[in-house]
Parts: sequence; C-alpha cells; structure tokens
Amino acid sequence: MQAIAISNTDATLWAPLELTLYGPTEGNPYREVMLSAIFSNGDVSLDVPGFYDGNGSYRIRFLPTLEGRWTYRTQSNVGQMHDLSGEFDVGAARAADRGPVRVADQFHFRYADGSRYLNIGTTAYAWSVQGDAMEEKTLATLKDAPFTKIRMCVFPKHYRYNQNEPDRYPFVMVKQGTSTWPATVEDAGWEFDFDRPNPAYFQHLEMRIRQLGEIGVEADLILLHPYDRWGFSRMSPEQDDRYLRYIVSRLAGLPNVWWSMANEYDFMENKSLDDWNRMIDVVADTDPFDHLLSIHNAFPLFDWHHPKITHVSIQRPETEHSLLWRERYGKPVSVDECCYEGDIAEQWGNISGRDMVHKFWLGVVNGGHVTHGETYYNDEEVLWWAKGGELTGDSVPRIAFLRKVMEGASDAALEPMLDNRNHRIMKFGADNVTGPEMSKPATGEEHWSKVRFPYPIASDPHQYYVAYLGHRQPREVVVPTPPDEHYSAAVVDTWEMTETPVADKVTRGDLLFIEPKPSLALVLRRLPS
Amino acid sequence: MQAIAISNTDATLWAPLELTLYGPTEGNPYREVMLSAIFSNGDVSLDVPGFYDGNGSYRIRFLPTLEGRWTYRTQSNVGQMHDLSGEFDVGAARAADRGPVRVADQFHFRYADGSRYLNIGTTAYAWSVQGDAMEEKTLATLKDAPFTKIRMCVFPKHYRYNQNEPDRYPFVMVKQGTSTWPATVEDAGWEFDFDRPNPAYFQHLEMRIRQLGEIGVEADLILLHPYDRWGFSRMSPEQDDRYLRYIVSRLAGLPNVWWSMANEYDFMENKSLDDWNRMIDVVADTDPFDHLLSIHNAFPLFDWHHPKITHVSIQRPETEHSLLWRERYGKPVSVDECCYEGDIAEQWGNISGRDMVHKFWLGVVNGGHVTHGETYYNDEEVLWWAKGGELTGDSVPRIAFLRKVMEGASDAALEPMLDNRNHRIMKFGADNVTGPEMSKPATGEEHWSKVRFPYPIASDPHQYYVAYLGHRQPREVVVPTPPDEHYSAAVVDTWEMTETPVADKVTRGDLLFIEPKPSLALVLRRLPS
Repeated sequence: MQAIAISNTDATLWAPLELTLYGPTEGNPYREVMLSAIFSNGDVSLDVPGFYDGNGSYRIRFLPTLEGRWTYRTQSNVGQMHDLSGEFDVGAARAADRGPVRVADQFHFRYADGSRYLNIGTTAYAWSVQGDAMEEKTLATLKDAPFTKIRMCVFPKHYRYNQNEPDRYPFVMVKQGTSTWPATVEDAGWEFDFDRPNPAYFQHLEMRIRQLGEIGVEADLILLHPYDRWGFSRMSPEQDDRYLRYIVSRLAGLPNVWWSMANEYDFMENKSLDDWNRMIDVVADTDPFDHLLSIHNAFPLFDWHHPKITHVSIQRPETEHSLLWRERYGKPVSVDECCYEGDIAEQWGNISGRDMVHKFWLGVVNGGHVTHGETYYNDEEVLWWAKGGELTGDSVPRIAFLRKVMEGASDAALEPMLDNRNHRIMKFGADNVTGPEMSKPATGEEHWSKVRFPYPIASDPHQYYVAYLGHRQPREVVVPTPPDEHYSAAVVDTWEMTETPVADKVTRGDLLFIEPKPSLALVLRRLPS
Repeated sequence: MQAIAISNTDATLWAPLELTLYGPTEGNPYREVMLSAIFSNGDVSLDVPGFYDGNGSYRIRFLPTLEGRWTYRTQSNVGQMHDLSGEFDVGAARAADRGPVRVADQFHFRYADGSRYLNIGTTAYAWSVQGDAMEEKTLATLKDAPFTKIRMCVFPKHYRYNQNEPDRYPFVMVKQGTSTWPATVEDAGWEFDFDRPNPAYFQHLEMRIRQLGEIGVEADLILLHPYDRWGFSRMSPEQDDRYLRYIVSRLAGLPNVWWSMANEYDFMENKSLDDWNRMIDVVADTDPFDHLLSIHNAFPLFDWHHPKITHVSIQRPETEHSLLWRERYGKPVSVDECCYEGDIAEQWGNISGRDMVHKFWLGVVNGGHVTHGETYYNDEEVLWWAKGGELTGDSVPRIAFLRKVMEGASDAALEPMLDNRNHRIMKFGADNVTGPEMSKPATGEEHWSKVRFPYPIASDPHQYYVAYLGHRQPREVVVPTPPDEHYSAAVVDTWEMTETPVADKVTRGDLLFIEPKPSLALVLRRLPS
C-alpha cells in the first residue's frame, strides 16, 4: 500500500482534490492523531487539516485556489504520515467550478471566480437524513427550483413533524433510546460515544453536499442545533470543538459549503455567548478556504459584528428591515427565517404564499437576501422545511420570477437607493417637501402635488431600477431615475408573474399611470442615449 | 312679536328643543350680546348658551336629558332677553331618539339611553359644502352603508382634489380671493370678517347634521383644520375661542354631534399645544350636554390623557395597536385614519380594500374602533374621503359584514382577551410553554405540541368569541374558550363574507381543523348548558 494517494491527477481550479493516507487504526484516531498538510503555490501557503475517515484511512481535502504548480508537505504526530510531500499542477477551472461564494461589494455575494451569485435560499433542515428515496426526490425538486442555497443541518432533527429515526447516526451508538417524545434529552435514553464519529454518516452527508454542488446549490450547513433527543446538542465544550474541527476538516474542501454555527443558537441552553465566540474561532481558524460563516438566531440577535462572521444570518419576519441591519453590521444580510409558507399551527409556519413572495420582494429591494421555507402539513408529515421532498406552495414560481427580475440587471447586484428612503411622505403643504425627488403635478397647481417616490427601489445605478409597490396600489407613480437619462418602463405583477410595458421612453419626474392593484413592481431599463 | 318662542310644545327626551328670542340687530351681536338660559329639573340644572342666528333672532338649543317638568330662565346683557322664563314637560323618548353617544365600559360607547352604539366610522371631510345634489347623494350612500359615524369638517377644505369653492362661506366675505393654488394662505387673497359669522352657512351645516341623525349617523365634527386657502385656520386666539363658543352653542343641542377639535392638529402651525388645551376647555366648558370630545393627530400623538378628552382619536396605520393605546390612555380608541382604500399617489390614500378590511378586523379584535375612508380617483375629482358622493371600493360590504359579526354578541361590547396576548409563541421545547392556554397535541407526544392560541380574540366573555387569524392560514387552531363551557364553532371568511360551521360542540383545548387560507376569523357561540 502506498503511503499517500492523490485523487485527481488532472487537478483544476476550484475542484476538490484529496490526499489519502494510511495510518493507525488502534486507539482513538479521532482524539489522538494530528494530521495536516501545507499546500504552497508561490507566495500562497495554506495549512489544510486532515481527518480520519475510518478503516485506517486519513484524508486531507484541498481546494485549489490558484492555477499552477502546487506543492504539499504533511505534518503528523504519526511517523508514517509525517513529512510526506508531493506536487501537482492545477489547470484552469472547468465551466461549472466557480469556487466558494464570497462576500462582494460589502453587502452581496459572488463566486470566488467573480461570477454572479444570487443568494436565494430555501430550508430543509434534515433533508439529508431521510433515506435515499426521499433525498433523491429532494435533489430532483431543487434541480428545478430557483434556489441557490439550502439551509441544512449536520445532525438529525427532533421536533414536531420530525420524529423518524435517521438511517445512521453521526457518532457511535452506545445505547439505543426511544423515538417517542421525551420530556428531556436525557429521558430519551440515547447514549453515543461523542469521541467516535461514524464515518459513514459523514460520507453520506458529504455525498449529498456534492450533489447539491452539481445542481448549483450552496449548502448552508448548520453545525449545531437544539432540536435533539440524542444528545448531540449537549456535548462538552471539548467535544464540540473536536467535532467542529472534524466537520470543517472534512468539508472545507468542498466549494459549496457555508458554515452556519447554529440554528437558533439562543435555544441551546447549555451554550453561552463565550462558547459561541470560542467555537466561531475554532471553525474559522480550522478552515483554510475561508468559507462563509454566520450564526442564526431565534429571538435575540447575535452580534454579527464579530470579525470572523462574514454575513448576517438573521431570523426576523420583517425582511424590509434588511436595509437597517446592513447598516448596523456592515455585512450582507440574509434573512434566513422570515416565517414559512404553510398551514401548520405554529406561527412561524403558516404564512400564505402571497406573504412569502411579499417578504422576498421587500428583502431584495431593501438590499437583503431572503430564505424560503415551506410547511404545508400532509399525513406523511413530510414537510419541505424539515424533510425536503416536494414543493407544493404558491411562492416558489414567484420567487423564480423574482430571480429573473434580479438577473435582468447587468452582472451587478441590485443596491437599494437610499436617497428615496426614510422620508416623511408629504401630508400637507408644500413646505413639507424637500429634496429633488418630486413628481410633476397630476392635477392642481404644481407646488402642491409634488410627492416623493415613496416606494423602496433597488438598482444597478444608471442602468436598471426595480421599485416594489407592495400592498400599495397607486394609479400614478413618478419616475425616480437620475436626471437626463431615459428609460423604458414596465409594470411587473409579482403575483401573476407578468410584465407589461407602460412607457417606451421616460425620464426623471415623468408620471406613469398604472392600473391600480396590489403586488406590483416597476422596472425601468436604461435606453441607449 | 312675542319675546320668546319655544319650538316643541310636545317635548320628548333626547329631542332638541329651541327657544327663539328676538333682540338687537345693531352693532355686532356675535361679539356684544351674551345670552344663555338655566334649564332645571329637580336637582338637575344646565346652563345652556344661546347664539345669534341673524335677522334679530337669538336661539337657545336645549337637549332634554330627563323626562318631566323643566323650567328655564334666561340671562342676557340685553334687557329684553334677560330673565325670561317658562316651563315645559318632557315626555318619554321617541323610538329613534337615543341621546348623545357616551363612553361606556371605559373603552366602548353607548347611546345616552344605554342602547348599543358601535363606532364604525367613515370620512368625508367636506361633504357638507358640495352643493345640494352631491350632498343628497352622500346622504343616500350613507343610508345604505354600515357606518355609524362620519368625520366631517365645519369649514370648507383646500387640498389636492379639493379645489372647488363652497356655495357659501362661514364668515362674511370682505374680499374675494382665488381658488387656484396659492403658495400660502395669504397669497390666495381671501379676506373674511371673522367677527361676523354667516348664519346661512351654519344653518346649512346644521341641516346636514340633523339629516345624518335621521339615518343613525353621528357627526364627528372637525372644528378646525389646516387645509385652508381662506384663512379660517389662522384666526386669532380670541377669534378661535369666539368661533368655538358659537359653534358649540349652535350645535350642542343636536344629539348626534361629537367635537373633534382638529384634524391633524399638528399641521396647524400657528397653534401651540397651549392653544389646543385652552380651546379644549372652551369647547368642553361651553357644552352643557357633554358631547364626546377628542382631537386628531397627523404625526405626533396628542396627549389624550387630558381630562376633558373623552376618547382617543388617533391617526396611525397600525390598528392592531389599539390595545396598547387603550391601556396607555384608559379611554376608547378610535383609529380615525389608518390609511384609506384607494389609488391616489399619496401613501395615506392607496391601500387596497383587503388591507382596509384587515385593518378593521385587527382594530376590532384588539379592542379599538376603526374609521374608513375611500380615495379612488376619478376625473371629476369627487373622492369620497373629501366630497362624499358614492362609494365604489371593496371594503364597505366587508365592513358591513364585520358589523354583523360584532352585533352577534349579546348587547355587550366585544372586549379583547388579554390573557391570550403578548405571548412568545412556542418555538422549541415544552419548557417555553407556560400558563393554561394550551392545545391538545395534533401529532407527537402531548407535552411537545402544546401551542398557545396565538391570534387576537375579542369576546363577550362566556358567550361569544371572535378570533381573527388575519394573514395566517393555520390548518388547526385550539379552542380558547374558558373551561367547562361548550360552544359551537364557525369559520368566517372576512373577505368572501361567508360563515361555515366547523363544529357543533367544542370545549377549551379542542382542536379545530379548518381549510387553510388567509383572512379567516373564528366565531364561537356558547351552547346552553
């Protein structure tokens, strides 16, 4: 058996490459064996951690971040795996490989290769532990859906509508417990050896994440969560840290992984803010490839200013506040739970498809990113939000339509127009109107009818403007584009998914008369001058 | 000519009665003549002010508040009108006469005779100065509408969509101005003698108020407002006070009058809070019959704690906050502008009919009272909210339907159930659930699925419960009635205006399964035990 094997002889940029080493099986490799490798290319040097994958196999996963000649040299406290070295050439990226998603333009995202990434999430927390038939159905659904991200848990989930046992467990089982409903985690009676991960569990997870990558979906991987009857939420700090180093070492080589430290961190009663800050360090410091990293709240907001947190992953119904949260944290805002379309009793899971679509539009025109979820009850208790399967709600095609509108801009991310915001709407008297955003009068004398454009707008400035009128149904709106530029104007019905031209050529201050009804948006496209 | 004439020889309770006196026409009777009368019946004694109605006629309007023998004696600084006396008998009220509306049960209203009054308002600020044809059309519309109150101005209105001149003016014109749009009130060039009211103007107003009374509509009379090109908003403090004493003296004898000190008081830049507090005193102290009195804001809230203010007349879109405002001020809350159904450019005038209906339901189940308005544009610029005319929106029949649901209780006003409010909804774990409002489990183990009833409910306790599910579309809701009582349950579609029975006999904690869709309410009626 050779001491080291390399997976790809034709390595390419942003395609994972794996070193396999053979080492000891005795003792507890998880606790006792240290392994990593330094990968170097010119001035770039990355310290890539390895992990034990069972049966004496140790792996180091590398994600090439540059083309050209890379060299590597291993480090280990096991002699046979120490100081092994080699080199390989990395060629140009294949078309599908765009690298990890990074923060771009402060409030948005792009793939590492600079290409456009629109963060349009969905949620299926436990989809990867539902057995192959359901999991393949989920992948098929995602392939046809508009989503570019899925929020999913590493660990299985215990919750209402989530009482099935997974096919396998992440740690070696010591004692089988019950899947009926326990009053406490302890009552369930499960015991696991948290010092012995089950490689098969993580290999399966990994396969599903790779399959997501193949269909262009990022895995927003929830590392810890409170919905638990097995005890995975109550490991010791040392066990948490070891687990985190392990999962990051295993998965950081996959380009489409994001780290979500927790779902509803504040419901994990046995962890303090100090614990979270410590664990954020563990994840960020273990990851050589700087994947996106955040943490998701239930009630109290986390302080997303934390320098190792890349973006805000907030739970709040008010997606329109994205603008405020962006300003507060100076980072992209992903509203990763804003209630789910569905019909269950729980308030977070029974908004209408209309409301979900409304929340998406509000988030987007306010400079945020919104995540979908669906919780329609069925007798099988296969609710998309937890188990995946099929999507039956009304919002998904409308979210796909919104995605098209967002893509209508050039490659640029749509940015909210701040100078049209937070204005007191003119109620009475010309004296209350200031600033340049005025309309021509529709009726009456000019100075009286000047009204600002009071709707949120996102734009690719000077090119493409999207205004969302929401629940309002004005018969007239004023063109809010910059002066001395000409635009075509169309009304978009965000629910009916139609676009209707309303003017071939308009300029700032022109009035557009539209058929009054709710859920409209206005799209303005720059005309050649 | 006799010195004094009495209008009703067959006086009845709550029917206005008028003394007419003849006095001087020379000088300025408005400023110079004092006239009032003390009306007494047993221990009750009321000091009723008189007013000059032109052509040498002085009137004192009395509203009998008790049956039986009343005596009166006049007081005046004019000898021929001083110390005149008489008596009359007041019989039982005629069926239609229920007296002024009063505050009842702290947060609600009743007629003075104790009968039910539901405050369901609409708004047509300037309807009484639109000429007879339009005004009669407005009355015909109101006759068939669900509204029991109309907000209306004493003075004509100057605003967008309000540029027509009235047929007559409240004061004697000195100089005609322009009806085109002035930059300032002064620019319009109008001049009036604010010391000489025009009796014909007020006689007309009075007739319209009486006609409202005949169709069961209260006149929430706005005494001052800022929408002005004639100068009526900029009289001196002395002129304001004189005008207020005059209008109250004229109209307090009509049972269906409420005093609204101002619309959007904060837009009247030449009046201070001290002015408003002084003028509140003038109105309250002049009125012998204690009509309802409030003041309406635009942006900053007024301090409705003021002891002479009977109820909160607030402008805010969030009708669901009625519960909080009730608690803050300890008085009934009438949300007298929460945006209008319509399609005009102005944000306060372009919500959908659905939104208007939603705001009504939210207000009512949260213990408030809501006022409607409609601002659909038409080429004639006859918008209901200002000029009256016809109602064309979608909300009015649904408001009528809501009124029926409110009337479904016994005579009692529906009160919000506070113990079901302001709870954090169970997100995770049985430990978060406290208190008695739990459901039986739909699925899973019992301790897990306990969920509070998270919708606002108003009730006639132990008899009739109305819960509004709003934008939520749960498939299951728990019966929130008190223990050991049985109810029938029906689902109400607040938009389709249907009621569908869902259970013949349920008790607290039972689950009701309903067809999930938005805009539903739940009605529970007590069964005989």
